[in-house]
Amino acid sequence: MPTILGQNQYGKSENRVVRIVRNGATHHIKDLNVSIALSGDMDEVHRSGSNATVLPTDTTKNTVYAFAREHGIDSAEQFGIHLARHFVSSQEPIHRARVRIEEYAWERIAPSAAGSRFIGAEDVQHSFVRKGQETRTTQITYDGARWEVISGLSDLTVLNTTNSEFRGYVKDRYTTLKEASDRILATDVHARWRYGWSDDERPTPHWERSYAQTRARLLEAFAETYSRSLQQTLFQMASRVLDTRVEIDEVRLSLPNKHHFLVDLEPFGLENDNEVYFAADRPYGLIEATVLREGADARIPVDLTNL
Amino acid sequence: MPTILGQNQYGKSENRVVRIVRNGATHHIKDLNVSIALSGDMDEVHRSGSNATVLPTDTTKNTVYAFAREHGIDSAEQFGIHLARHFVSSQEPIHRARVRIEEYAWERIAPSAAGSRFIGAEDVQHSFVRKGQETRTTQITYDGARWEVISGLSDLTVLNTTNSEFRGYVKDRYTTLKEASDRILATDVHARWRYGWSDDERPTPHWERSYAQTRARLLEAFAETYSRSLQQTLFQMASRVLDTRVEIDEVRLSLPNKHHFLVDLEPFGLENDNEVYFAADRPYGLIEATVLREGADARIPVDLTNL
Amino acid sequence: MPTILGQNQYGKSENRVVRIVRNGATHHIKDLNVSIALSGDMDEVHRSGSNATVLPTDTTKNTVYAFAREHGIDSAEQFGIHLARHFVSSQEPIHRARVRIEEYAWERIAPSAAGSRFIGAEDVQHSFVRKGQETRTTQITYDGARWEVISGLSDLTVLNTTNSEFRGYVKDRYTTLKEASDRILATDVHARWRYGWSDDERPTPHWERSYAQTRARLLEAFAETYSRSLQQTLFQMASRVLDTRVEIDEVRLSLPNKHHFLVDLEPFGLENDNEVYFAADRPYGLIEATVLREGADARIPVDLTNL
Amino acid sequence: MPTILGQNQYGKSENRVVRIVRNGATHHIKDLNVSIALSGDMDEVHRSGSNATVLPTDTTKNTVYAFAREHGIDSAEQFGIHLARHFVSSQEPIHRARVRIEEYAWERIAPSAAGSRFIGAEDVQHSFVRKGQETRTTQITYDGARWEVISGLSDLTVLNTTNSEFRGYVKDRYTTLKEASDRILATDVHARWRYGWSDDERPTPHWERSYAQTRARLLEAFAETYSRSLQQTLFQMASRVLDTRVEIDEVRLSLPNKHHFLVDLEPFGLENDNEVYFAADRPYGLIEATVLREGADARIPVDLTNL
Repeated sequence: MPTILGQNQYGKSENRVVRIVRNGATHHIKDLNVSIALSGDMDEVHRSGSNATVLPTDTTKNTVYAFAREHGIDSAEQFGIHLARHFVSSQEPIHRARVRIEEYAWERIAPSAAGSRFIGAEDVQHSFVRKGQETRTTQITYDGARWEVISGLSDLTVLNTTNSEFRGYVKDRYTTLKEASDRILATDVHARWRYGWSDDERPTPHWERSYAQTRARLLEAFAETYSRSLQQTLFQMASRVLDTRVEIDEVRLSLPNKHHFLVDLEPFGLENDNEVYFAADRPYGLIEATVLREGADARIPVDLTNL
Repeated sequence: MPTILGQNQYGKSENRVVRIVRNGATHHIKDLNVSIALSGDMDEVHRSGSNATVLPTDTTKNTVYAFAREHGIDSAEQFGIHLARHFVSSQEPIHRARVRIEEYAWERIAPSAAGSRFIGAEDVQHSFVRKGQETRTTQITYDGARWEVISGLSDLTVLNTTNSEFRGYVKDRYTTLKEASDRILATDVHARWRYGWSDDERPTPHWERSYAQTRARLLEAFAETYSRSLQQTLFQMASRVLDTRVEIDEVRLSLPNKHHFLVDLEPFGLENDNEVYFAADRPYGLIEATVLREGADARIPVDLTNL
Repeated sequence: MPTILGQNQYGKSENRVVRIVRNGATHHIKDLNVSIALSGDMDEVHRSGSNATVLPTDTTKNTVYAFAREHGIDSAEQFGIHLARHFVSSQEPIHRARVRIEEYAWERIAPSAAGSRFIGAEDVQHSFVRKGQETRTTQITYDGARWEVISGLSDLTVLNTTNSEFRGYVKDRYTTLKEASDRILATDVHARWRYGWSDDERPTPHWERSYAQTRARLLEAFAETYSRSLQQTLFQMASRVLDTRVEIDEVRLSLPNKHHFLVDLEPFGLENDNEVYFAADRPYGLIEATVLREGADARIPVDLTNL
Repeated sequence: MPTILGQNQYGKSENRVVRIVRNGATHHIKDLNVSIALSGDMDEVHRSGSNATVLPTDTTKNTVYAFAREHGIDSAEQFGIHLARHFVSSQEPIHRARVRIEEYAWERIAPSAAGSRFIGAEDVQHSFVRKGQETRTTQITYDGARWEVISGLSDLTVLNTTNSEFRGYVKDRYTTLKEASDRILATDVHARWRYGWSDDERPTPHWERSYAQTRARLLEAFAETYSRSLQQTLFQMASRVLDTRVEIDEVRLSLPNKHHFLVDLEPFGLENDNEVYFAADRPYGLIEATVLREGADARIPVDLTNL
């Protein structure tokens, strides 16, 4: 029976590129992990092994490094746009390019960061400490006509010590959970947001500013929401982004409920008035949802841990 | 501006359940990691925080353990079907359940395994060593009417020391790769296959036998294929499954090209006739494709690392 | 032939304890991972399986949580001292206790952190974001008479974009490396420092202040040193701590050389004037050394990744 | 105040080397991860940055690959001995070399492995699947006069479904654990064993056979022991090795107690007669001990996770 070749893509994944810009003695750093996936006329390579339409994955790697030199890296998004456009426009058999980028933030080892009066101003200009916290992400897709840009962040860990409850839920035969009127709410924020921009003729958003502002809105909404469920907190976070960032049409959040269980200290004759918690690993609740601007299409994939 | 709630789901992830069956002195073990995701009438909990339609994720966890006792675990697939049916049929607001399961294989510490003449037959009946190699996976989705079962495996690492070449590819300005007529081909197989079964009225496949046979076909096709590209090997592996397993309609493979670079020993006055390799971590090629039986729909998600 | 029981220890590892202190609406958080290891009269339990001298590891876990309530957690060090003293002094068969603690830092989601003018002052009092960056560590050992406190940090990633060279090294038959007069120097700092304090009669250091200052000195010395080798940078970092922190007698650093290789862009007709780098994973250089105050004993174990 | 340079070492870590041996069509594979650490006259490089005695870590990497060609890899131990001898004997400033090696096992994709009658005999000769299970390890240390060889394995996961109890332990104020007369006993075996061989004039053990036999003895003793505590099981495992392998003088085991908690199903009206367990991650008990042949020195480091 004949078999059909369905969706397929190939390319080099996890190209680690670091670019230094030297403005005199003041240096700047961009630290990216870039993955390329190309699709197009690839029937033959699958069926007969002919590589006549295949640009090697090694070449896609070389292109990442060459473009870092030729185009610089103003933002992960802009860099991904350069790359995606290049593959689709320069290689006839390639009809679609998807570029995924992770970005790791660095901050200067400044006198204040080091808590130091000794450190010289000149050192601050070329010395960095990795910021930790979230990984910034973006995914650029281009088919020769339309752009899709989905940016986001992974593993931004947040925690409220109060203003969270969980009550009034459904009880069935298997329910043993006690209602909680004051609990710790903690999660690793995994967020993806899709920009409305898709047309080369229109100006692109200011990617760096948009990222900083969106991140701030997510944190702010998490902190401000009195939470009756993690779903409610999620919806507030996503809505806050849509309400304040006109360049964004769709937000998806994946929020593991990092359970902090109040430890029962009664066997030891001790009270535990919301003081001492056991931070559990597995299992964990997982709350996921997409929130959209009215009229927008839902395009962010449902399972975004790998996005 | 009004915001729309799009796709959403929630549940308890990574419930680690181990079930022992004791046939007299001979014990059997099933070792699973079960994740539940439920969808349905969840507008209110997102918008107002009312939990009136929310079965707690803690209850979904309890259900996993109770069902391991009530229904046993014949196979991951059958266990997932029990769970998915329960959530959709017992809770009116829940319209769809998705159950993901990872399974870890164990083998007996047998005289042959231990290389021992000392070990007693009675020990072989209750002593196990974890098999390592691949993680078996399945995903069961049920909407009250139709079933979708996507099973698979992750991280089965294979390597051919010869019968692999890569030549005749496109060269552009950024191409520096030399053609290879005899190279190591190594990959971590990530496979997902979708069963044709979707209707409760029809008999289910024999899940355990189907898994064992599909795994064997993947290994066999990898070993037998003279490879002109990893895409060709991928297509052969997926086609072999479709050609031999009538119960399967669609296969998707994600194959990282685990590069083994021949080390240049010339500076040390040594030849390296395909003997000594550097096994690289990053970057790596990533080759992904879906292969379908004619007439089948493509339903396996494109990015399956997290599936 | 008789066999001898040598060094042995047991206890519960990785007890995750989170403690919240509520000063009115202003909350404080301590987030620890505590591992207990006890030694003493344990011959019988190894030889015959008699547990008559064995305090269960489960009890050591319970004690961690109870002590978080009874004694609070002023610092990881002080908390570890309470625990170690308890096990040795309350259980006759236990002669030595070692308590290892990892601490994860949190910072407030403050208006400045969130970049927000919307966030209310009240939210800042109970909302936190995990700081990322290094894990703080400590190891307390007590034998009923003397204390040993080894604190430190793991995975503080730092990078200098200039002021690093590597020249004038030994060349042998297998040397191909080119000398570098201006390279990126990057490392994950793993540091351990041993306090001079060992006697209950003497006042303890101010653990929190000492940690903050030691961390600052390490960062500062890394930034300020013009590096001819990573060994030299290591020695400067350790010496800076010993020169400025009288409470510390010994420092050990383990510094992986996170190689950033300048990419050869010549095949593409491009210069690469210290601009574009490939950040490699493996292999990596590993530079490790102990630096001591004169007269001090070397007691920090040589391989400290697991310490 | 003057500072003293204590123990220090440097070298290239995690050199991934794969060596293929081709006996006609039948190929053999060795897959290693090799880490070099050198010590000697290194005062100047730490104090002034002079590299005059420093063989670059890059050279140590090159040597690993060159030696895989020049000497082959009969066993990880033999390969490590070649490397350690080379560094100490060829470089005057280097007084001590430590070589650590991890080895990953592969098995053939054989007709029986693939469960296939289709696979051809010729494919079996060059196609491999990674075995999974434990990582084999060795550490070779040489100071120009004496050898020390500590081999072992990490992460061999084993489980007994019965013949394990835990009773008669100490109870204090913080004890809540219930005695168990029939429990699951599961652990990840981390084992290190030190060979008596240290003198170049004496014949070396048969490293490959010794590994296979020692591994078998550990598994066998785990399976056969009726366990009253994990300490007892540990002692039996180590003693079995010393009793049967005369070439080994010292064994250290680190055994995490991978807790499998019987789930309380009573709230759901279900019995749980040692059938359904929750496999927990953290915290875990950790049981560690050294067992020695009489008259032997204890030289295996106490904390061996990183060894």
